[in-house]
Amino acid sequence: MSEREIAIAGVGMTRFTRQADRGHRDLVEEAVTAALTHSGLAPSDIQATFCASVAGGAAIGQRTLKNLGLAGRPIVNVENACASGSTALIEAQAWLLAGFCDVALAVGVEILSASRGPLAVRTPGETSWIFETGLNLPGWYALKASRHMNEHGLTLEQLASVVVKNRRLATLNPYAHFRSEVTAEEVLGSPMIASPLTLYQCCPKVDGAAAVIVCTADFAARHGLTPVWVRARALTSGTQVFTDAPEPADGAHRAAALAYERAGLGPEDLDVAECHDAFSIGEILYTEALGLCADGDGGRYIAEGSTSPGGKGPVVNPSGGLLSRGHPLGASGLGQVAEVVWHLRGEAGSRQVPEARIGAVHTMGGSEFELDSNACSVHILERA
Amino acid sequence: MSEREIAIAGVGMTRFTRQADRGHRDLVEEAVTAALTHSGLAPSDIQATFCASVAGGAAIGQRTLKNLGLAGRPIVNVENACASGSTALIEAQAWLLAGFCDVALAVGVEILSASRGPLAVRTPGETSWIFETGLNLPGWYALKASRHMNEHGLTLEQLASVVVKNRRLATLNPYAHFRSEVTAEEVLGSPMIASPLTLYQCCPKVDGAAAVIVCTADFAARHGLTPVWVRARALTSGTQVFTDAPEPADGAHRAAALAYERAGLGPEDLDVAECHDAFSIGEILYTEALGLCADGDGGRYIAEGSTSPGGKGPVVNPSGGLLSRGHPLGASGLGQVAEVVWHLRGEAGSRQVPEARIGAVHTMGGSEFELDSNACSVHILERA
Repeated sequence: MSEREIAIAGVGMTRFTRQADRGHRDLVEEAVTAALTHSGLAPSDIQATFCASVAGGAAIGQRTLKNLGLAGRPIVNVENACASGSTALIEAQAWLLAGFCDVALAVGVEILSASRGPLAVRTPGETSWIFETGLNLPGWYALKASRHMNEHGLTLEQLASVVVKNRRLATLNPYAHFRSEVTAEEVLGSPMIASPLTLYQCCPKVDGAAAVIVCTADFAARHGLTPVWVRARALTSGTQVFTDAPEPADGAHRAAALAYERAGLGPEDLDVAECHDAFSIGEILYTEALGLCADGDGGRYIAEGSTSPGGKGPVVNPSGGLLSRGHPLGASGLGQVAEVVWHLRGEAGSRQVPEARIGAVHTMGGSEFELDSNACSVHILERA
Repeated sequence: MSEREIAIAGVGMTRFTRQADRGHRDLVEEAVTAALTHSGLAPSDIQATFCASVAGGAAIGQRTLKNLGLAGRPIVNVENACASGSTALIEAQAWLLAGFCDVALAVGVEILSASRGPLAVRTPGETSWIFETGLNLPGWYALKASRHMNEHGLTLEQLASVVVKNRRLATLNPYAHFRSEVTAEEVLGSPMIASPLTLYQCCPKVDGAAAVIVCTADFAARHGLTPVWVRARALTSGTQVFTDAPEPADGAHRAAALAYERAGLGPEDLDVAECHDAFSIGEILYTEALGLCADGDGGRYIAEGSTSPGGKGPVVNPSGGLLSRGHPLGASGLGQVAEVVWHLRGEAGSRQVPEARIGAVHTMGGSEFELDSNACSVHILERA
């Protein structure tokens, strides 16, 4: 799977911010129209669509796409918690590689800002005993942070440094919800959500949509498109935390290892990466999982600026990450892909990572249901 | 795509009936365990899982599969209204044909009996103006029935004959919810739901799960499995009913035509078919869409016994169909596949269609959102 068989032909997204009143359809139409414009393709070129949303309700794709001229052709709705968007992109690629179509659209959308409290996945008639204990997502990540502090000496200042870095980067990103800097003192002084994670260490709940158009290499060549190659994609689910006792971010380690193996590349090849910093500790764990530093060393590595512009590693979350841009679940993974594609095409404006050639996108989906994750995907992209 | 590349290795399902107290996980475990036993495979053989549900909530696959030993490997949740299960099966096949894996599981589950009234897809903060008019699914199908009566002379007795046939067939099916016969008088005398559709012409809302294991032809051969071949699969979505003015069941006609073309087969080759009789008029429209008779002639064709055992056409809905077995949305399409697979393997017991060699499965997903369908899938299966 390391061949250059699949091209990303275009990407587009709305700003991720509080805009619940716009509704799903308006958000989807803006993101898809932007991706079509970016690719140079027309709606009639899209042969199948994969729509990601967690809370958007049944038939979200059919409801939001019909005015775009995409009705009639196959539409599949995909859900994989916070990794829904990335999973939709994998399904689109599966259709291309299976020979079902030549061009496919992955689009994700979420309206979250209207809901209160930590996001809870509730199913009528069923309760998760874990969730009832209060172990929602901030709680899970707080436990991971406490373990990291205990086992590896992670400090509160290192946790805060992730937020300081990402909020600084986001000042250059017009798609981000937060576009102002914060200091480490402000991060650590913000209200405690789940110790040691303070409010500014938790991503904001926002609304938005993002879209990615993929096609076969043949189609890209025939139509003179500007491809960004998908060198590899990997999807895992987590193992059971109470019986299999995995290491933190076990699913992410496995997904990253699979993606590197399939691409024939390694962490040393990366110029840029978007990784799933829904919480500050997340970026630390997944920087390690992506192999950018040794396990346990993520806090120090980030705090010393290794993944900041000009650092010794790839720039991680040049968009400002979920901590700044916000996290509209079904759209988030595709927003990450859009950011990396812009850097690989040299289109990232004032936040451009210079000469970016290889990028990674890491998306994590949930860890509420006795699994260390519901889904983790890693993509490796390469400029043409 | 007409090659014998994909084998159905095993199928399993729970009875479809009122059993909401069992919960999603218990239903999924029964269906998947049955499919594993049927195939002769172990949980460790399953490399990826596609889970279908409409109302099951986020991460339904991860929540229901973890005790089966399937955690750690990729799990993707798929939703396509009433065609969710069939769509999950298509995604599983896409992964096989893309080379992502050799063996995949599609499982669908739904708990519906606890909800009241016609099924409504409601999204927080958004309303469908169409739904607000009362055009829920019984209403849509009632309009289709009225149009058929007006344009083609469909009679109430012909509508009732669909129910009489399917309820009679269901007396032989231990998986069906209703297992007693009804007369045409009883069908037409049952309470009016949406004129001309009476209660017995609407499928019951039940709970259940169904599972289908697919693998590559190579894997089936290496492991000495008993394959049922997938000769073709097709997925469409509907066009806009208020602007594109399609014929009734336009999406179904297109899906059937695609499937036949891809299989290199035609309606004359079918020995058995399961088709989406969520309402009596549905079986009439989709019998026509599958090309078993001329458009407009479905009522007469079914009423004269052409699709009953011993009739001149293939047996349609030997399971008793959705009208008897019930319609647990995410599970329904995979339950249809299970039924056809049993007939093709000669395992359908007292309701066996003799010498069944080729079968079709037609599943329809919704028609609430200004589209004539959200999704329509047709599979053509062949015994080894």
